[in-house]
Amino acid sequence: MKVITFGEIMLRLAPHGYERFVQANDFGATYGGGEANVAVSLANFGMDAAFVSKLPTHAIGQCAVNSLRKYGVDTSWIVRGGERIGIYYLEKGASQRPSQVIYDRKDSAIATAQEADFDWPAIFADATWFHFTGITPALSPTLAAITLTAVKQAKALGLQVSCDLNYRKKLWTPQEASQTMSQLMPYVDVCIANEEDAEKVFGIHAPDSSVIDGVLNQDGYVEVAKQLSERFALKQVAITLRESISASDNNWGAMLYEEGQAYFSRRYPMHIVDRVGGGDSFAAGIIYALSQGQNAPSAIEFATAASCLKHSIEGDFNLMDVSEVNTLVAGDGTGRVQR
Amino acid sequence: MKVITFGEIMLRLAPHGYERFVQANDFGATYGGGEANVAVSLANFGMDAAFVSKLPTHAIGQCAVNSLRKYGVDTSWIVRGGERIGIYYLEKGASQRPSQVIYDRKDSAIATAQEADFDWPAIFADATWFHFTGITPALSPTLAAITLTAVKQAKALGLQVSCDLNYRKKLWTPQEASQTMSQLMPYVDVCIANEEDAEKVFGIHAPDSSVIDGVLNQDGYVEVAKQLSERFALKQVAITLRESISASDNNWGAMLYEEGQAYFSRRYPMHIVDRVGGGDSFAAGIIYALSQGQNAPSAIEFATAASCLKHSIEGDFNLMDVSEVNTLVAGDGTGRVQR
Amino acid sequence: MKVITFGEIMLRLAPHGYERFVQANDFGATYGGGEANVAVSLANFGMDAAFVSKLPTHAIGQCAVNSLRKYGVDTSWIVRGGERIGIYYLEKGASQRPSQVIYDRKDSAIATAQEADFDWPAIFADATWFHFTGITPALSPTLAAITLTAVKQAKALGLQVSCDLNYRKKLWTPQEASQTMSQLMPYVDVCIANEEDAEKVFGIHAPDSSVIDGVLNQDGYVEVAKQLSERFALKQVAITLRESISASDNNWGAMLYEEGQAYFSRRYPMHIVDRVGGGDSFAAGIIYALSQGQNAPSAIEFATAASCLKHSIEGDFNLMDVSEVNTLVAGDGTGRVQR
Amino acid sequence: MKVITFGEIMLRLAPHGYERFVQANDFGATYGGGEANVAVSLANFGMDAAFVSKLPTHAIGQCAVNSLRKYGVDTSWIVRGGERIGIYYLEKGASQRPSQVIYDRKDSAIATAQEADFDWPAIFADATWFHFTGITPALSPTLAAITLTAVKQAKALGLQVSCDLNYRKKLWTPQEASQTMSQLMPYVDVCIANEEDAEKVFGIHAPDSSVIDGVLNQDGYVEVAKQLSERFALKQVAITLRESISASDNNWGAMLYEEGQAYFSRRYPMHIVDRVGGGDSFAAGIIYALSQGQNAPSAIEFATAASCLKHSIEGDFNLMDVSEVNTLVAGDGTGRVQR
Amino acid sequence: MKVITFGEIMLRLAPHGYERFVQANDFGATYGGGEANVAVSLANFGMDAAFVSKLPTHAIGQCAVNSLRKYGVDTSWIVRGGERIGIYYLEKGASQRPSQVIYDRKDSAIATAQEADFDWPAIFADATWFHFTGITPALSPTLAAITLTAVKQAKALGLQVSCDLNYRKKLWTPQEASQTMSQLMPYVDVCIANEEDAEKVFGIHAPDSSVIDGVLNQDGYVEVAKQLSERFALKQVAITLRESISASDNNWGAMLYEEGQAYFSRRYPMHIVDRVGGGDSFAAGIIYALSQGQNAPSAIEFATAASCLKHSIEGDFNLMDVSEVNTLVAGDGTGRVQR
Amino acid sequence: MKVITFGEIMLRLAPHGYERFVQANDFGATYGGGEANVAVSLANFGMDAAFVSKLPTHAIGQCAVNSLRKYGVDTSWIVRGGERIGIYYLEKGASQRPSQVIYDRKDSAIATAQEADFDWPAIFADATWFHFTGITPALSPTLAAITLTAVKQAKALGLQVSCDLNYRKKLWTPQEASQTMSQLMPYVDVCIANEEDAEKVFGIHAPDSSVIDGVLNQDGYVEVAKQLSERFALKQVAITLRESISASDNNWGAMLYEEGQAYFSRRYPMHIVDRVGGGDSFAAGIIYALSQGQNAPSAIEFATAASCLKHSIEGDFNLMDVSEVNTLVAGDGTGRVQR
Repeated sequence: MKVITFGEIMLRLAPHGYERFVQANDFGATYGGGEANVAVSLANFGMDAAFVSKLPTHAIGQCAVNSLRKYGVDTSWIVRGGERIGIYYLEKGASQRPSQVIYDRKDSAIATAQEADFDWPAIFADATWFHFTGITPALSPTLAAITLTAVKQAKALGLQVSCDLNYRKKLWTPQEASQTMSQLMPYVDVCIANEEDAEKVFGIHAPDSSVIDGVLNQDGYVEVAKQLSERFALKQVAITLRESISASDNNWGAMLYEEGQAYFSRRYPMHIVDRVGGGDSFAAGIIYALSQGQNAPSAIEFATAASCLKHSIEGDFNLMDVSEVNTLVAGDGTGRVQR
Repeated sequence: MKVITFGEIMLRLAPHGYERFVQANDFGATYGGGEANVAVSLANFGMDAAFVSKLPTHAIGQCAVNSLRKYGVDTSWIVRGGERIGIYYLEKGASQRPSQVIYDRKDSAIATAQEADFDWPAIFADATWFHFTGITPALSPTLAAITLTAVKQAKALGLQVSCDLNYRKKLWTPQEASQTMSQLMPYVDVCIANEEDAEKVFGIHAPDSSVIDGVLNQDGYVEVAKQLSERFALKQVAITLRESISASDNNWGAMLYEEGQAYFSRRYPMHIVDRVGGGDSFAAGIIYALSQGQNAPSAIEFATAASCLKHSIEGDFNLMDVSEVNTLVAGDGTGRVQR
Repeated sequence: MKVITFGEIMLRLAPHGYERFVQANDFGATYGGGEANVAVSLANFGMDAAFVSKLPTHAIGQCAVNSLRKYGVDTSWIVRGGERIGIYYLEKGASQRPSQVIYDRKDSAIATAQEADFDWPAIFADATWFHFTGITPALSPTLAAITLTAVKQAKALGLQVSCDLNYRKKLWTPQEASQTMSQLMPYVDVCIANEEDAEKVFGIHAPDSSVIDGVLNQDGYVEVAKQLSERFALKQVAITLRESISASDNNWGAMLYEEGQAYFSRRYPMHIVDRVGGGDSFAAGIIYALSQGQNAPSAIEFATAASCLKHSIEGDFNLMDVSEVNTLVAGDGTGRVQR
Repeated sequence: MKVITFGEIMLRLAPHGYERFVQANDFGATYGGGEANVAVSLANFGMDAAFVSKLPTHAIGQCAVNSLRKYGVDTSWIVRGGERIGIYYLEKGASQRPSQVIYDRKDSAIATAQEADFDWPAIFADATWFHFTGITPALSPTLAAITLTAVKQAKALGLQVSCDLNYRKKLWTPQEASQTMSQLMPYVDVCIANEEDAEKVFGIHAPDSSVIDGVLNQDGYVEVAKQLSERFALKQVAITLRESISASDNNWGAMLYEEGQAYFSRRYPMHIVDRVGGGDSFAAGIIYALSQGQNAPSAIEFATAASCLKHSIEGDFNLMDVSEVNTLVAGDGTGRVQR
Repeated sequence: MKVITFGEIMLRLAPHGYERFVQANDFGATYGGGEANVAVSLANFGMDAAFVSKLPTHAIGQCAVNSLRKYGVDTSWIVRGGERIGIYYLEKGASQRPSQVIYDRKDSAIATAQEADFDWPAIFADATWFHFTGITPALSPTLAAITLTAVKQAKALGLQVSCDLNYRKKLWTPQEASQTMSQLMPYVDVCIANEEDAEKVFGIHAPDSSVIDGVLNQDGYVEVAKQLSERFALKQVAITLRESISASDNNWGAMLYEEGQAYFSRRYPMHIVDRVGGGDSFAAGIIYALSQGQNAPSAIEFATAASCLKHSIEGDFNLMDVSEVNTLVAGDGTGRVQR
Repeated sequence: MKVITFGEIMLRLAPHGYERFVQANDFGATYGGGEANVAVSLANFGMDAAFVSKLPTHAIGQCAVNSLRKYGVDTSWIVRGGERIGIYYLEKGASQRPSQVIYDRKDSAIATAQEADFDWPAIFADATWFHFTGITPALSPTLAAITLTAVKQAKALGLQVSCDLNYRKKLWTPQEASQTMSQLMPYVDVCIANEEDAEKVFGIHAPDSSVIDGVLNQDGYVEVAKQLSERFALKQVAITLRESISASDNNWGAMLYEEGQAYFSRRYPMHIVDRVGGGDSFAAGIIYALSQGQNAPSAIEFATAASCLKHSIEGDFNLMDVSEVNTLVAGDGTGRVQR
């Protein structure tokens, strides 16, 4: 089983510890992006995973490639060219102070990629699953078209297709998102979303829930999943449920909706080390668990535990392996030293 | 509107993270001091702020000047001369282990400054507010005299005058503090204090409160403010109310007493990144809010939120801007990522 | 009063902060090991303490010696020779992600030491207490024999002897441990253990307690101590009681059993900075308190407070002095800044 | 006397020490750019200096502003807006391995600035000197037009105007450079160049010199200066003469051509700490010395010594003051400790 | 063309900068070893390269794998198992102070590997070149036997075989080396050595040369190569010629002996950043150049330039690409900034 | 044989690498001072060495004690008390930019020490050598008196006494130095000086030598030694001869004058890592060599080699052992890797 993910990988520049940007004299330089994060997590779970993208030929582009190769992701389908790598600056929040993200991703190599850059039949030759997020088609109209080409091809070749809605208001309006995503969703089997995405992209609202209050309403999310599922004939809908108590403490859980039934995971209170990539690690957990043939209750526990653990790891990538996730699934979240 | 603050800025030497002094091979080198911290916070709020002090001509003195210029504080009234810059060593505590401060500030340039070093009429020419703390007059008898000159001049020129009592037992005894501060207070409009200062400096005790137990008694603090207010004919008295659960967790709130009425802020549970300068950021919040003409309930919420956020920032300086403070005032302390 | 401890000191290689091993480009290099940690803590309490071991002649061996000399531990009985220093790699966990320890201690200088390396009568000449842990005899059969020689000699010279069971499943089986430790225990006065050791080494189980659930049963531990005490005619049995809520938060307490009576300490909720060496700091607290003639209730409070504070310190060594421990014993765990 | 400089300031991202890009996990984050570097150096010489540019409103834009304020540069004419700050990545070379620069400056805030962003009469109100480099007009056609507006206004107000040719082949072709610069040069009084610029921009070649061999021909450069001077009726032409022995060692000197006469400076053999900004520090030295009324031989020695010292300083900015430069001018380059 | 290298990769622990071991509180953690270094350099030259070895299953073993994957080395033939990874400690020298290496590689996973761990026909299936060094057979008698199996198989399959003598006195005596290497050399086509190896391993002495004086005698090395070549019927013998002036400065050159003819490279004076792995980068240069069909004079210039540049790079790995090496071959060693 | 040294140990605060003070956000925190440096070097040579001084009771004072204990220096005679530890700030120069030292040592614990703090008969009980420098008596008149007490006592007890003139113009004038040192010198056996001290302290000038030019005149220094020797009836006079080419490169040699004969050492060209403490490491070399009974030519070679090597080590302390020094004495300064 081999998973293909398609999207952007950016240079992530982050001050150390809890420094604000104005205090930083160094930026930790790592690399990440929704679809790349999924590929790395899957490789760490032991699956074959390839990430498809475009990166400049210069050394910083090579650094991004190397950051993936290091974890065993197949990078042979990354096209080299274009002028720049996208960047995001990340300032980590604490207590009541929120984290800040500044994007500088316009005109990145992938955002300026062309249809001819990607040979989908070759890319999908030995693959069983294709994953993308709502960020990829938002990067440019051409990329939206390329994504459509890709999902059609994937479907035609019998791959499972998953999509994480991942709405980004800096990239497009809800109207633009809705129009484009509505064209892509018919080819999607598994839809992944957080508690806000469905409303932003498709206007499907979870009643009686307020993100700012940090209060989530379980029943509302079942309704959201049901509507999504029916509108696009989805096999599964997976929704993450985050309660933000502060930048330092969150509660984390998720729900998997399958064949009219909703399965809720355990809830985890988390001390947060780094929450960027939390949703991506959940998507990887879902893809892994479903690929392995786990049933819905197992799959949602695996994905939630995996992504819970991601919040304890610096950087975008989830660096947990399957046995570590299963230890938490089995109920040991006590953090006792493993000697 | 331009605020003048007057006092000492020190070199702060702090081991990284939670290292004890005996483990440190590096000291983070930043600069701070009560009145300088207020000036920086006000500059970050967009106000004109000047810091008046004395620093040696050597490169370390220049570093202190630069640390203020970086944030846009007017440093043109900092006299250069004297032999040394004051130093404080800070070891950050965690859980039950308290933070440690070692002062080495004796004979600093500002502590040995003379009346002739400061041309108050020129300094106050375009200013609307003068702020000092109880530390400044405690540094030397001459500095106490200079401070008296300054407040008299400020009053004569119609500036608002605020004073943060900021009692430091290493600098003077309660008797010395009481005698000197009693001379200065008649020129003060706004008095700022923490839950211990009023008792230490003026013998005004908040009944039924124990700092070691971490339990605070709200009614007691209204009584303290009332007595302070009446004794010195103050316009406002602002008191911070800290509940120390541990070195890692504090609860934070404050009260503003104005015209016989006490206004209590919301209380914030805080995970602490760095609590040094917390009181100064509160003073800056009070000065800003009152300068902007906010009423008492608004002002105390602004100042408390500003200083709550300071506890999430490394270093003495509060690096939050007005819109960030207002987000917390508006109730969003969930720390969700700002993309 | 002088305490002799005997065992292994290792190079500890730990990624910075919460990095996983695969992310680390630097390893913090410190030194530690159960018996060395006890010696350092006792030296920091102002006692004379000597650590007996064997280390290679090369520079890394010297670094380990220097790490002890720095804190005033007498290192003159450390034999130099052998081929390598033992190593352990430590990855610090957070929230639900546990800390990981990888040992690489085989064939270390001390594990290959011989009887002739240690002149016990000379070593014990001016000593009053001898301390070892269950790790030392587990390192090699020869070392088990040497430890037996040492305890016999210590007993003959009238020293108090303490042993921390410290069961390590990577070093030996419960059967091996039981057989060897049963030979050593008759010479022991004070036995120290955590909530699992007695069961692992001697099959003495605390009923109704589950480490994974983090729930501890006080009565069960009294029973464990009673059995231990009676089987080996011990003067005191001290047991630490850790409740692991997560890798970031633990509750901490302990019990001292003496002459049929069990004394429980206060319980401390802890934010953990570094929990390695927590048990060793407890042992040092017990040795110090009993050496000073404190009664059982005092001793258990001192030792528990000392080891609670250790959890706020990076590295294996407890760097708290007696007055700092006594502040916590006296009830001030609020972590207020000490200026 | 107040100097105005106009151009771009970029975020400089550089691996630590001699790491290659592919090894870097941190980038040192500083800020620099030709004209900003000149402003900082002049401020460090004690002159009033203002830097005119455009930067985004976000925190990274503010960081760039703060990097200048720290050294006392007047930043009040920096317009805030646009989408991004330009970036350059710098990998430091050593021995035979050259330093590498990767630019990512397209569509930066200043490159997309408009005429209306700059109120030149107000900017020049109290100024005596205007400095720009060949980089500014190369950033966009609009910026070329703005620069022309600026030099005309400067000339009309009687300011001295200096230009550092600073040819960048990544920004424009020699043809484009020649056309644009030829329009600007008539308003220039002092032209500054390195040993390659005149040829690249105006086709004026120094005979018998080969940059790759590291051999420079003095007579050739006199001829270059003469031609430049005559073509554009310049008061002074200053040319830096660098002999690159390796990335670690360079020889450094310069020539000032004035009224038909060429004045050569002493030559300095340099161990290089950081050579970026070397030319800018020379320009600042020329501007300072000529502003102070130094004659040509003095001015060229001052500027060469200043820029020689820059090569020993990390970052783009020259952080030497006048007395330090004069010590080297006076012949003391022995580097003995100044106690 | 695909190159297989076989040997040990170790964890390299090195204090930062020029710290001595006793000063280090951090060790930079990288990975390296003669044959792994060759594989990485070849991958950086764009060749397919696989490294064959054995590493423990734990996270540190995985780190070593990742360090190779990052640069695109095929790690699929690395067997996982065994107990530990070999370690070497490196202290970097400067000026007259030599670098120090402490090995702790005994009983590493590869040193305890067995014949059955390696399926040579499969490993060599699509390979064209096999490279090993004298370190591999020195690690254990079993490994010597495995190496013999490998070279026989490689020869049988028609691969080119190269061997870098790489004598290590800590691993075996000259007698042991001579006996084992003499069995392996008949299967070798290309022998690589430094100025000391031939004498140590085979007793072939370069007359009139003294390593301690740093004086090398060119004619002597031709004689050494001739004897080596004739004794083992080698196609090529390549010898590096290092003149050690100090730990900071070396001169570097090399000679290639082919068909009775000696070709000497240019000599490079080097400022040294890190000289570990210098010989390995030379071997990679030889393998690359000969694989590409370069003639002897070209090949020796390429390999010498490549390894000269390695000395400017931190860590064991040579991170230069082919175009960068060719720039130096073409004569540009001036280190001018590449913008 | 045991050596006692007496003086001040300071906290040394130094920016990393070649940062200027104004760039530093961290200061490396080490400890050093002339006499402490000598004690550490002697301990590293394997001699018993005790350092006598006074330090505050706070944690930073303890850090200074620990920095000495780490290397095995006997610190039991360091009196604890006083208010502060002296500080010096060190900015490392490069190429033509000199290193800068800023002292903040006034009113340090040792500078305010009293006669009663030191029990010289007890301190000297088992000692054979007493060493001090011209810095100690310069710290305060009381300290000058204490030093006189010490040398008289040392002489009376038959110890060898050595003095490094170490003139510091920030501490006293030549007149003050001359008067005080003239009282102390009659008790001195071995006088150590650099090329400037004798002139500054006693007006003894080396003809035809100019420090700024970096040119030294050997004959002149013989004359200086002769005069010193005769004026104070010294057994030996040792003078270091530094040629400062730049802050990065120095030539280093020395001369020992004994019984009318001058012995010059070899000269070493040095790449400098850290030159602070160079003279102290020379003094330690002289004391060690003479204590061991080496003759004058041997002693001067040992001391010069030892101090040459110090220049390659970060920090004040010379961390070389005897065998490493002897390797350089024996002529191997090639810096080849020691495996």
